[in-house]
Amino acid sequence: MIDRLAVIGVGLIGGSLARALRAAGQVGEIVGCGRSREHLERALDLGVIDRFSTDPAEAVVGADLVFLATPLSAIRPTLARIKGHLRDQAIVTDGGSVKGSVVEDARVVFGRVPPRFVPGHPIAGTERSGVEASFPELYRQRRVILTPLPGTDPEALDRVRGLWELCGAEVSLMDVVHHDEILAATSHLPHLLAYGLVDALARMRENDEIFRYAAGGFRDFTRIASSSPVMWRDICVANRTAVGDMLQRFAVELNDLADTIQRGDGDRLLEIFARAKAARDRYVDGPNEVSAGADVPPNRSSSAS
Amino acid sequence: MIDRLAVIGVGLIGGSLARALRAAGQVGEIVGCGRSREHLERALDLGVIDRFSTDPAEAVVGADLVFLATPLSAIRPTLARIKGHLRDQAIVTDGGSVKGSVVEDARVVFGRVPPRFVPGHPIAGTERSGVEASFPELYRQRRVILTPLPGTDPEALDRVRGLWELCGAEVSLMDVVHHDEILAATSHLPHLLAYGLVDALARMRENDEIFRYAAGGFRDFTRIASSSPVMWRDICVANRTAVGDMLQRFAVELNDLADTIQRGDGDRLLEIFARAKAARDRYVDGPNEVSAGADVPPNRSSSAS
Ligand SMILES: NC(=O)c1ccc[n+]([C@@H]2O[C@H](COP(=O)([O-])OP(=O)(O)OC[C@H]3O[C@@H](n4cnc5c(N)ncnc54)[C@H](OP(=O)(O)O)[C@@H]3O)[C@@H](O)[C@H]2O)c1
Ligand SMILES: NC(=O)c1ccc[n+]([C@@H]2O[C@H](COP(=O)([O-])OP(=O)(O)OC[C@H]3O[C@@H](n4cnc5c(N)ncnc54)[C@H](OP(=O)(O)O)[C@@H]3O)[C@@H](O)[C@H]2O)c1
Repeated sequence: MIDRLAVIGVGLIGGSLARALRAAGQVGEIVGCGRSREHLERALDLGVIDRFSTDPAEAVVGADLVFLATPLSAIRPTLARIKGHLRDQAIVTDGGSVKGSVVEDARVVFGRVPPRFVPGHPIAGTERSGVEASFPELYRQRRVILTPLPGTDPEALDRVRGLWELCGAEVSLMDVVHHDEILAATSHLPHLLAYGLVDALARMRENDEIFRYAAGGFRDFTRIASSSPVMWRDICVANRTAVGDMLQRFAVELNDLADTIQRGDGDRLLEIFARAKAARDRYVDGPNEVSAGADVPPNRSSSAS
Repeated sequence: MIDRLAVIGVGLIGGSLARALRAAGQVGEIVGCGRSREHLERALDLGVIDRFSTDPAEAVVGADLVFLATPLSAIRPTLARIKGHLRDQAIVTDGGSVKGSVVEDARVVFGRVPPRFVPGHPIAGTERSGVEASFPELYRQRRVILTPLPGTDPEALDRVRGLWELCGAEVSLMDVVHHDEILAATSHLPHLLAYGLVDALARMRENDEIFRYAAGGFRDFTRIASSSPVMWRDICVANRTAVGDMLQRFAVELNDLADTIQRGDGDRLLEIFARAKAARDRYVDGPNEVSAGADVPPNRSSSAS
């Protein structure tokens, strides 16, 4: 039970956590915080929060648990602002998509990462933003990664773990650097490919015609390019080493693929495509997959050549 | 009305055309053809075809309309086999994803592209293959591109157009080379990115873990990598110039993006992401989009960072 929860950044991620904990009957009062009064009024109207402040220092007063769910570039100034206003036993956790930068933010602001600061990342989301997009089931059957440090208080870690489990999530622990590398591959790279593709097509002379003849498969493939540009700018900058590296490696792969195609090496192409199809069918659509939601019907969702 | 329709390749594309024309009550008899008796028996059981032959020369006897819906590499041998067995007034059309190679196949086999040969391409499909995956609504509200040549018989063109319209499709005409360039951008490149990404991840040391932490957005993004490897090998080889070129150009973009990220140039990233999001929201999910199906719910289909 959390008596008072402060959510800094009441958008998709923060709003959904608030809704899920409320639905589970596990929270007394929820205090919201953000920059815009209008957004916060909306969160109040929707019953996501009970009251709000636009000042993080004020929002965290008396809170047992503080959840940071702003874009990554706002984490450091937020920590600086709440420093000195937290209760002694308050636990602080976050939902940022990159963990190295958040840990570094905490280190810079507090001199060291506070023992009761638990860095976290729910592997769940949609391409939509803001409190209106939030819903209590977002974390159900999704994975949440926590990246505790050697100095992290085990009791704080347990509390944060329990909180995510209340929302229906499956929690794993991971090393900070490893998290950022894995996510660069599975999440940041795909988003950049989608953004990059749509942008490249939009800049072509015949862009109108190009989008007109884009088929259903294109729609699924590029859905993630409708995600929040600010959030993705922050993720790329925060994880720039791993992401830059991953992109460069992938560009090499593409040149290799182009070469295989230009040579007309059908056998090699067949091998690559068959291996990829097998991996996807096995891991992503197969019985082993956990975190991918069941919202998208596996059949008939359109693709096309 | 078609008295006798011959479908060579009764899979997703051929099976769906047969089903749609049958549902529209616009076809007398449907003769199927393929390599495997088992597949053809299944098509018979499903009521997709009325009878079959594994020999294209036999399948086309007496047909008013022949629809070629095999992978692209089978088009030339099929044309060679049916040559001399077609009725005088028979119309031949196809559903191949590349048009330059099909036109070249016809030219090589017949000495010139026959006036009653109408090259075509439905911009519709799913990642599934075979007659079991076919359904009569596949072409409803989708686009079909026909790429007639100067020598194409206008009456044959009209008949083929009418046939697709019966299936609920919207038909456009396009130049062969232009078709292959546009599709290289909107369809072939995305498929290669999805195949390439899944393959790259599958080859990583921690591939098991990588797929475990892939979120819902990854599932949508890579859905097209579950498409038929044979079909995509054929498409890449058939459209190798445009596809190879497109891939190389995209690799340059990715290196440029990597450089922007490594420099930490957030403003430039924000500009790229915002432009891409605006284009996608406008063209793909907006009121202007026609061909993308309505099967995938636009909200809550999962994406994640
Ligand atoms: N979306 C996903 O798929 C996903 C998944 C996992 C993790 N995450 C992470 O979760 C965090 C939030 O993402 P989200 O999708 O929930 O974004 P969102 O829907 O845009 O919500 C962000 C919230 O933060 C507030 N905010 C923005 N800048 C702020 C600032 N400088 N100070 C205080 N509040 C600020 C915004 O409200 P105002 O505009 O009123 O300030 C907004 O309500 C990000 O760090 C992201 O990396 C996202
Ligand atoms: N799937 C899409 O999204 C899509 C969209 C637009 C256009 N297309 C084009 O449509 C065509 C068919 O694609 P599809 O998705 O329908 O594939 P599919 O479901 O695999 O069907 C292909 C059919 O062709 C038969 N076939 C294969 N090789 C053959 C050969 N050498 N001779 C005679 N029949 C043969 C197969 O039956 P047997 O195994 O029994 O021979 C199968 O029934 C391809 O040219 C593709 O480029 C596909």
